[in-house]
Amino acid sequence: MELLVVTDKCIDYDGSAIQSHWAYRNFGILGNSLVVFRGKCDVKVEEMIDIEDLRAKKEIRSDDMVHYIIEVFDFPNVLLASTLQKLFIAKLCEVLGGYGIKTVRKGDDIYVNGKKLSISIATVSPVSIKIHIGINVEAKGIPKGIDAIGLKEIGINDVDGFMDRTGKALVEEFKKVKKDSLKVRWAS
Amino acid sequence: MELLVVTDKCIDYDGSAIQSHWAYRNFGILGNSLVVFRGKCDVKVEEMIDIEDLRAKKEIRSDDMVHYIIEVFDFPNVLLASTLQKLFIAKLCEVLGGYGIKTVRKGDDIYVNGKKLSISIATVSPVSIKIHIGINVEAKGIPKGIDAIGLKEIGINDVDGFMDRTGKALVEEFKKVKKDSLKVRWAS
Amino acid sequence: MELLVVTDKCIDYDGSAIQSHWAYRNFGILGNSLVVFRGKCDVKVEEMIDIEDLRAKKEIRSDDMVHYIIEVFDFPNVLLASTLQKLFIAKLCEVLGGYGIKTVRKGDDIYVNGKKLSISIATVSPVSIKIHIGINVEAKGIPKGIDAIGLKEIGINDVDGFMDRTGKALVEEFKKVKKDSLKVRWAS
Amino acid sequence: MELLVVTDKCIDYDGSAIQSHWAYRNFGILGNSLVVFRGKCDVKVEEMIDIEDLRAKKEIRSDDMVHYIIEVFDFPNVLLASTLQKLFIAKLCEVLGGYGIKTVRKGDDIYVNGKKLSISIATVSPVSIKIHIGINVEAKGIPKGIDAIGLKEIGINDVDGFMDRTGKALVEEFKKVKKDSLKVRWAS
Amino acid sequence: MELLVVTDKCIDYDGSAIQSHWAYRNFGILGNSLVVFRGKCDVKVEEMIDIEDLRAKKEIRSDDMVHYIIEVFDFPNVLLASTLQKLFIAKLCEVLGGYGIKTVRKGDDIYVNGKKLSISIATVSPVSIKIHIGINVEAKGIPKGIDAIGLKEIGINDVDGFMDRTGKALVEEFKKVKKDSLKVRWAS
Amino acid sequence: MELLVVTDKCIDYDGSAIQSHWAYRNFGILGNSLVVFRGKCDVKVEEMIDIEDLRAKKEIRSDDMVHYIIEVFDFPNVLLASTLQKLFIAKLCEVLGGYGIKTVRKGDDIYVNGKKLSISIATVSPVSIKIHIGINVEAKGIPKGIDAIGLKEIGINDVDGFMDRTGKALVEEFKKVKKDSLKVRWAS
Repeated sequence: MELLVVTDKCIDYDGSAIQSHWAYRNFGILGNSLVVFRGKCDVKVEEMIDIEDLRAKKEIRSDDMVHYIIEVFDFPNVLLASTLQKLFIAKLCEVLGGYGIKTVRKGDDIYVNGKKLSISIATVSPVSIKIHIGINVEAKGIPKGIDAIGLKEIGINDVDGFMDRTGKALVEEFKKVKKDSLKVRWAS
Repeated sequence: MELLVVTDKCIDYDGSAIQSHWAYRNFGILGNSLVVFRGKCDVKVEEMIDIEDLRAKKEIRSDDMVHYIIEVFDFPNVLLASTLQKLFIAKLCEVLGGYGIKTVRKGDDIYVNGKKLSISIATVSPVSIKIHIGINVEAKGIPKGIDAIGLKEIGINDVDGFMDRTGKALVEEFKKVKKDSLKVRWAS
Repeated sequence: MELLVVTDKCIDYDGSAIQSHWAYRNFGILGNSLVVFRGKCDVKVEEMIDIEDLRAKKEIRSDDMVHYIIEVFDFPNVLLASTLQKLFIAKLCEVLGGYGIKTVRKGDDIYVNGKKLSISIATVSPVSIKIHIGINVEAKGIPKGIDAIGLKEIGINDVDGFMDRTGKALVEEFKKVKKDSLKVRWAS
Repeated sequence: MELLVVTDKCIDYDGSAIQSHWAYRNFGILGNSLVVFRGKCDVKVEEMIDIEDLRAKKEIRSDDMVHYIIEVFDFPNVLLASTLQKLFIAKLCEVLGGYGIKTVRKGDDIYVNGKKLSISIATVSPVSIKIHIGINVEAKGIPKGIDAIGLKEIGINDVDGFMDRTGKALVEEFKKVKKDSLKVRWAS
Repeated sequence: MELLVVTDKCIDYDGSAIQSHWAYRNFGILGNSLVVFRGKCDVKVEEMIDIEDLRAKKEIRSDDMVHYIIEVFDFPNVLLASTLQKLFIAKLCEVLGGYGIKTVRKGDDIYVNGKKLSISIATVSPVSIKIHIGINVEAKGIPKGIDAIGLKEIGINDVDGFMDRTGKALVEEFKKVKKDSLKVRWAS
Repeated sequence: MELLVVTDKCIDYDGSAIQSHWAYRNFGILGNSLVVFRGKCDVKVEEMIDIEDLRAKKEIRSDDMVHYIIEVFDFPNVLLASTLQKLFIAKLCEVLGGYGIKTVRKGDDIYVNGKKLSISIATVSPVSIKIHIGINVEAKGIPKGIDAIGLKEIGINDVDGFMDRTGKALVEEFKKVKKDSLKVRWAS
């Protein structure tokens, strides 16, 4: 899994980055990848992946977020997509713990002090698994009714450093997962 | 995923429970399952799954452990096996956090105060994913050279309660993973 | 497999219900499902699944049909889709036998007295298997050249009862198929 | 799917024919196959596939049976195995209907006059789907407690003819299933 | 794998033949197929499959080519698609060797005297593997900057004969691949 | 795909290297691998993979061979195994062409001057694809009735150099196959 942390420019997230080969089309990264970038979040209805959100006509918005776009080509299966997503979220909580921040993970959501820090979705394309995770930098521009929080409110001001540290942590986690999958004999 | 917590008797773990359909053969549980039980751990060489351990001729032993045997039939893929295993380990750390215990997860290992609390393996049979997790109740009978710790040393004396709480937490986690995998449209 | 029998309103079938997650989008049913409903049938060309029909420029129409929309997420494979479809059709014939009606099944078609009672299609989306079965309530509005028959012509006037009975029978069949798939050890 | 009907000799069934490539090893038939033969049935415990039977310590015996051994290499998946098995059983019931015999199918069992006519198992090897179906020629040598019936008791005395007719019917069914799986476009 | 060699008319290739079921829609060929035809090549941007080409804004053009469109339904996996493609290219080089022509294969490209003879792409649809190979008849209408060569420049003037001979050779190769996959027992 | 060329010692091939994880167990190589070594060949009957050979009671022997053991974990499918095998054989022929040697490939066999230079088998374990290729160094110890030839007879005396050159060529080929599988968008 190749890591790209984009810190020299903003990239807004409108949901289209969830399509397959986004990292290859935009950055020339071939194969499994994690691209970390920062920008506004405003997901267009036609790009919404979560049908629960679509049915509830939810808005997915934030003025400033750190985004993670993961693509894994090994096997495009929704259960693997959903499992990987939860593991990555758990890993982010562990990294936040390293910053001294106490988090509560509920499935694919991260809460700090009862407030929502993140959004996430995981699905498949016909050739890959795609996961998006967004972490509020500041809790601004969030849809009404959501009690949100951002990195700055919890004392993480070095956003570039956070992007780098979490990016590396997620890639390390994936590499460990992959390595362990190769060193075990099958059971009867 | 059906949960069975066995608290009325001890079951020793010699590695053979990693075979497919163990829960069905022994308890009549059909389909995805988590069986939690308590007993000695002494894995026979012919049942060892981790080839790294086999190559290093490691012993896998403990006098008293809480064991988790998970079987998932959805898709017998080693990457999904390894990902699910790490997620379950992360969840166990979160539950331990609920007990007020600070853990460090390294892949599929749980450490408390720099000491090893757990062992784990994940693999596939031709029809299912199989995961074993073992948590020391007391750090006794551990192979030399491993600095281990057990539940009792970290203040968890109600082992039955711990088995029940962690069993439920893991099953809830899996159900959430599965549910989320079904509610997303595919991406192009 | 969750069953929903819609008897409080008509739903026309234009072919779009063959898309993935139709049951979740419209009824909030997550996972494997069978939705039984009644309404007109007029499949739009752009929704036609059977390329043989497309090549022959066939029309797929009926003024009043009982419709079955099945979605199975376990494994999106066309051979499984086609096999499940034939099994469901065979089961419907068996239920019709319980009404005292003698049927002839030819693949995925049901004939009574040499007349066509049903239409059906089975395919995959990138995440699921989708099957549509339609049974004429009355042989009206059928494309020319097809010698059709309907439930009313063969003495089944309690259409709601038929929808309920067949819906339950198909779900029971699927549950048996699934259960049996989990209780067998693999062969070498 | 290649068909071989063995009528020039008896072959007893001890369960080992459920292993992969049995048709190729014994008859040189490559790929998907159905071998129909006649002989005693006495399944050795170590060849038993149904863990439910194993747990109940059931015996699987009959003095004279028509046997069907099916192997399908397309995709070794237990759900497809179980679905194909039920479809083949349903087809056999339809053929028996052509003989004027009224059957009741319960999953993978065929009953005539409330008596059990058949046994069946479906599973996977690491490379294929394997299905065994056995139909009593006479209800002799059956384990106690099972109320069985055989072909001769229901008026089918031309066993060779029955083997030929059912063999062809099952192969035709599979070919139709396969053909239909190839002529449909995928749904979104 | 069914072979169709179209020699009675020209068919231009604009890239749309890469879609699934093209052979069935246009020629009624069901299942695995190879269609060989001759015509202009001018791939529309929206049909381009190679994202590397898209990123580089390459043109894919030739005034006169022999085209091979292969579809394999067995398992829609990109690694199998890419492997099959290279094997077919290697086979074409072997057939060209039979004409006395020395070729150099670089992945999926064929060179003669350092000049490019062919283009190719391999991918999956949600139900099949699709491969296109194009061989220049004459090196005319090729995008600037590509040093191309065609069959006529290397002395192959009987293009119909070449289409027939290569078509048969590719189908034979696939049949051998398939046959060999069925005659081996699995390894532990 | 990691390459290991063993030139400091002989390793005899008795067929057991075809088992999964052989490279990891013996050399600590994790994941996709190619191990090239030299030694006697005498395949034990219980390790024979080709059932055609088993049925014909063929012997598989040679006094001195260069062996290639390939393991690919991406997807354990027999069709991919068989396709990869043929591609590797074609690549070996191309490398031999670079030595100035004219070869004829028949499926997975290499012939020089009408004499057999090589043996090969491809299959799957429950977790991987396994391929063995053996090339005679000298045509000694070959079973009767096989007209064999070896590297020395065709002028290749630097066996170590040949092992290195072919090993690198096969790994390069696989890397190209893999890379190309990742750079293409899916087709509808």
